[in-house]
Amino acid sequence: MAEENTVYIGKKPTMNYVLAVVTQFNSGSNEVVIKARGRSISRAVDVAEIVRNRFVPDAKIKEIRIGTEELTNEEDGRTSNVSSIEIYMTR
Amino acid sequence: MAEENTVYIGKKPTMNYVLAVVTQFNSGSNEVVIKARGRSISRAVDVAEIVRNRFVPDAKIKEIRIGTEELTNEEDGRTSNVSSIEIYMTR
Repeated sequence: MAEENTVYIGKKPTMNYVLAVVTQFNSGSNEVVIKARGRSISRAVDVAEIVRNRFVPDAKIKEIRIGTEELTNEEDGRTSNVSSIEIYMTR
Repeated sequence: MAEENTVYIGKKPTMNYVLAVVTQFNSGSNEVVIKARGRSISRAVDVAEIVRNRFVPDAKIKEIRIGTEELTNEEDGRTSNVSSIEIYMTR
């Protein structure tokens, strides 16, 4: 999976990320991965659903993985855990 | 899948739902389903990860499904779409 096929979900409006995924598919990618952490996980699911229901009807959810990543606070060096999701879409 | 094996994620503290899932496993269930909609989706992933990493180490993620549900506003009758997730955990 080339890195350019991955869309990272942050705090921008949902439709920005939908457009990024649709653009990937329309430029010839057969697989796009949507990745998010923490509270952005809900938005990642929204993006996948909107892409599939409205823009790329032949796109399918191939696999969904969840995990835990350790983040280190740069100020005090403490670590905390954050959940992550990877949604693999194919057409 | 019996309904009593399903844990619905709402707006309570995450550990409440972790306890509910752990209790299901400890009472003999081999499969527990974690369901959430909208913004609670991130919390559902947190619950699954905490259960697996801290409390039920032999629990596995069997399958994750996402979807879209239509909600009707009871006041004005308008409908809106909300994303949903179902996380199937087995041990």
